[in-house]
Amino acid sequence: MSGEAGVTLAELAEKVGARVAGNGDRRVNGVATLQGAESSDVTFLANPRYRRYLAETRAGAVVVSEEYVDSLTTDGLVHENPYATFARVAALLSPERRPEPGVHPTAVVDPRARLGDGVAVGPHCTVGAGTLVGEGCILGASVTVGEDCRVGANSVLHAGVILAARVTLGARVRVHSGAVIGADGFGFARDGDVWVRVPQLGGVRVGDDVDIGANSAIDRGALDDTVIEDFVKIDNLIQIGHNCRVGARTVIAGYTGIAGSTTIGRDCMIGGGCGIGGHLHIGDGVVMTGGSHVTNDVEGPGMFSSTTTPVQTNQMWRRNAVRFTQLDNMARRLRALERRYNEKEDEGR
Amino acid sequence: MSGEAGVTLAELAEKVGARVAGNGDRRVNGVATLQGAESSDVTFLANPRYRRYLAETRAGAVVVSEEYVDSLTTDGLVHENPYATFARVAALLSPERRPEPGVHPTAVVDPRARLGDGVAVGPHCTVGAGTLVGEGCILGASVTVGEDCRVGANSVLHAGVILAARVTLGARVRVHSGAVIGADGFGFARDGDVWVRVPQLGGVRVGDDVDIGANSAIDRGALDDTVIEDFVKIDNLIQIGHNCRVGARTVIAGYTGIAGSTTIGRDCMIGGGCGIGGHLHIGDGVVMTGGSHVTNDVEGPGMFSSTTTPVQTNQMWRRNAVRFTQLDNMARRLRALERRYNEKEDEGR
Amino acid sequence: MSGEAGVTLAELAEKVGARVAGNGDRRVNGVATLQGAESSDVTFLANPRYRRYLAETRAGAVVVSEEYVDSLTTDGLVHENPYATFARVAALLSPERRPEPGVHPTAVVDPRARLGDGVAVGPHCTVGAGTLVGEGCILGASVTVGEDCRVGANSVLHAGVILAARVTLGARVRVHSGAVIGADGFGFARDGDVWVRVPQLGGVRVGDDVDIGANSAIDRGALDDTVIEDFVKIDNLIQIGHNCRVGARTVIAGYTGIAGSTTIGRDCMIGGGCGIGGHLHIGDGVVMTGGSHVTNDVEGPGMFSSTTTPVQTNQMWRRNAVRFTQLDNMARRLRALERRYNEKEDEGR
Repeated sequence: MSGEAGVTLAELAEKVGARVAGNGDRRVNGVATLQGAESSDVTFLANPRYRRYLAETRAGAVVVSEEYVDSLTTDGLVHENPYATFARVAALLSPERRPEPGVHPTAVVDPRARLGDGVAVGPHCTVGAGTLVGEGCILGASVTVGEDCRVGANSVLHAGVILAARVTLGARVRVHSGAVIGADGFGFARDGDVWVRVPQLGGVRVGDDVDIGANSAIDRGALDDTVIEDFVKIDNLIQIGHNCRVGARTVIAGYTGIAGSTTIGRDCMIGGGCGIGGHLHIGDGVVMTGGSHVTNDVEGPGMFSSTTTPVQTNQMWRRNAVRFTQLDNMARRLRALERRYNEKEDEGR
Repeated sequence: MSGEAGVTLAELAEKVGARVAGNGDRRVNGVATLQGAESSDVTFLANPRYRRYLAETRAGAVVVSEEYVDSLTTDGLVHENPYATFARVAALLSPERRPEPGVHPTAVVDPRARLGDGVAVGPHCTVGAGTLVGEGCILGASVTVGEDCRVGANSVLHAGVILAARVTLGARVRVHSGAVIGADGFGFARDGDVWVRVPQLGGVRVGDDVDIGANSAIDRGALDDTVIEDFVKIDNLIQIGHNCRVGARTVIAGYTGIAGSTTIGRDCMIGGGCGIGGHLHIGDGVVMTGGSHVTNDVEGPGMFSSTTTPVQTNQMWRRNAVRFTQLDNMARRLRALERRYNEKEDEGR
Repeated sequence: MSGEAGVTLAELAEKVGARVAGNGDRRVNGVATLQGAESSDVTFLANPRYRRYLAETRAGAVVVSEEYVDSLTTDGLVHENPYATFARVAALLSPERRPEPGVHPTAVVDPRARLGDGVAVGPHCTVGAGTLVGEGCILGASVTVGEDCRVGANSVLHAGVILAARVTLGARVRVHSGAVIGADGFGFARDGDVWVRVPQLGGVRVGDDVDIGANSAIDRGALDDTVIEDFVKIDNLIQIGHNCRVGARTVIAGYTGIAGSTTIGRDCMIGGGCGIGGHLHIGDGVVMTGGSHVTNDVEGPGMFSSTTTPVQTNQMWRRNAVRFTQLDNMARRLRALERRYNEKEDEGR
């Protein structure tokens, strides 16, 4: 970074491993969309449907793949993965504001907790006994970290995050506001007219470079731990039950629920609004489209779906939805008709 | 309001623009249901299915439309929109308790934040630098408002609300406990064996008179803003992804998810438990029934549905659900049978 | 408990009402899974699918039912309900750490609130005027209890829980982090181009021994109360609308939504990811499988389902989902074919 005047494209290109197409001395200092960019901004083209904006953009530079270099009307940064390259450019040009290191006077840090170098603890935080917070971590306002937790270096817990107890986070983990990690799993044993709580004694182990979205909930294990492996990306309002394991690099989109003791493989993509039952095994490389409900094991890799149907007018849908309840009957009648027809034909011979 | 003795029906009628049927001097001081009301209460009849309670109610007065005036057995307030009129009566007879203006001594308000006249900031709140809180606003306990936010006049942020960063709220906005506005959108670029975070730099702009329910999450935009227009009503546990736009007066019922960059028109009603995919356009005046999943654009106005089917016994449902997986096969067999039959008939001629 | 050296099986058996099979003098001091247990641990076998681990376990003792006694390779605690018995054993061997009684100096307790004996109030809590917190209750960090609430004896509100206003909890209630009880219900009356807020004036009444999961939301009633009866178990991320009533011992699994004014009977089991419409009545003893959407009353007891279909490859599912939109047409064509065939046969006679 070269201060207010920005950075040259050549400098940027070197930092992100891209090639300059055009004037490497051009200075840029921000990022924007193709439509909104000004001459000091870098933008990008990753989705071909936005190609038409390439001719009109007023951006200083566009991150593109090789195939679009000839369509550039301004300078370019060329890389085979323009979206990831733009992400790196944006991180350089718009670095996050970091709070000053130190513990806010209103925060309550147990004397038996340990904070690494450069940790920033915001107002109204609580950090419990036996907890270690790694160097460079940021705790926003009103964050609660319970007892015996480990937070890896350079992790960020945004305002209002709660790590309940026995939660271990890796390095560079980011947890968004309102997320609750390590609450009791849902375990009750029926005994006559009452439910007996089954003590939830496990923890949650989260790998490096994991993101966990706002208001999501990841429960602690019953006896063993709930495990989220490296580079898993979890969106908002997601429920992950006790003793689940989510494999490395798997992405789970918003507002999906996974019941207890289910294993999700590596490199999966679970769409939004999915419901995945308990005690299941989803293999590596499974893409599950949004709104699917899963009640059996799914062997990967591959793309899978269930449950959702296309939108129709309510009038049409009502007719079809009622017919769903008659499907087995229809199938039997169809089979019967085929049989009668085939017999008739045999007779006719 | 006339103190403990209440207010006369005539006074109330004038304030809410209704007509008195009966004794305008009757004094009332509370509101209740048709079944639970006492002689000092006002109640209402809006849903015809509750008409039978009209004869039995012990209420002092009932808000009704003209067609029910003759069925009244007590005094009435007559208005063509009895539900909205009752809402106004209730607001007059049971005004919300307002906390005293002022900043609680435990709150942490950055010196570079500005608070308007009459603002009440509760215990353990945090207000960041560069933020403006408009006159008459109420911040409940443990509210966090990040840096560079704007909160319009007379808005209420209930206990535990979090405005993360660059969030602008209009006037008279009400955000319920646990809601998170302005957390990072879900943006990651795959690069070989890792996911690169795409910096989320946009904000959230919320119009006037918007309500946002408990534990809902509205993400900040990636580069541009996420936008919620005036009078939008958002229920609990709702997820709105980055760069969405929700049109004026649209109502979204509980536990619905909207993926990123989707536009919802004005005057829509989105039922509970819906899942709406990303990069879609839902037109004005669309009613989407509860539980629908939307994966394509929907042109309004009109009532639309998908996905859900009627409840059956588990035994019946199991048979039909399996048949769903054979539907295409059934359709082809049906078509084949029709063809064979038609050929036979042609032969027979 | 007998200190570090643990407790004998005979002592444990007496406390939980089990029979010892084997050496009653064996000392144990912890609990673990069949696979993970060491010789000082107690484990259990409740699910027959884990029977194969019985031969290999290194556990000191296994809680089993009578039928598995002969398969034990170690000592046993025998009871007809091994899971509930194990839950009781675990509670004895791994008792929860209780914070010291007392009010943390950072907590803000209104002088008009009353706290029972032995109550522990954590850092950054807020307790409002007119509220009673019963003896032995624990409030974790950053808990907010609004005005005029009642919290029954020995209840636990984990970090970040919010009781908004007029919330009554019974004894031994446990509310997990991020749950919001008593936020305004979703009530608005359309009036021309605006929505008028309908004041939400009711409360929430929660019985004894209820559990409420992380980030769930239970709204206050509009005029009357929302009611959750004794022993109801509510998982994470659940939405219960205003004026609902949930009957005793009913269990609701994660990420389910129930719209306003719906009544759920006693001893129901509502699966995860269900959506239940408003103003409905679900009878006693209803089991609703996960992912079901309910739009009509359901008379219990019995097991019911709707909406979800089995997982298929995306390619197969696409074909079948499109056919769903043609179902009514298919049913009519099938009926027509049957009619034509029957007429033909009649002719042929």
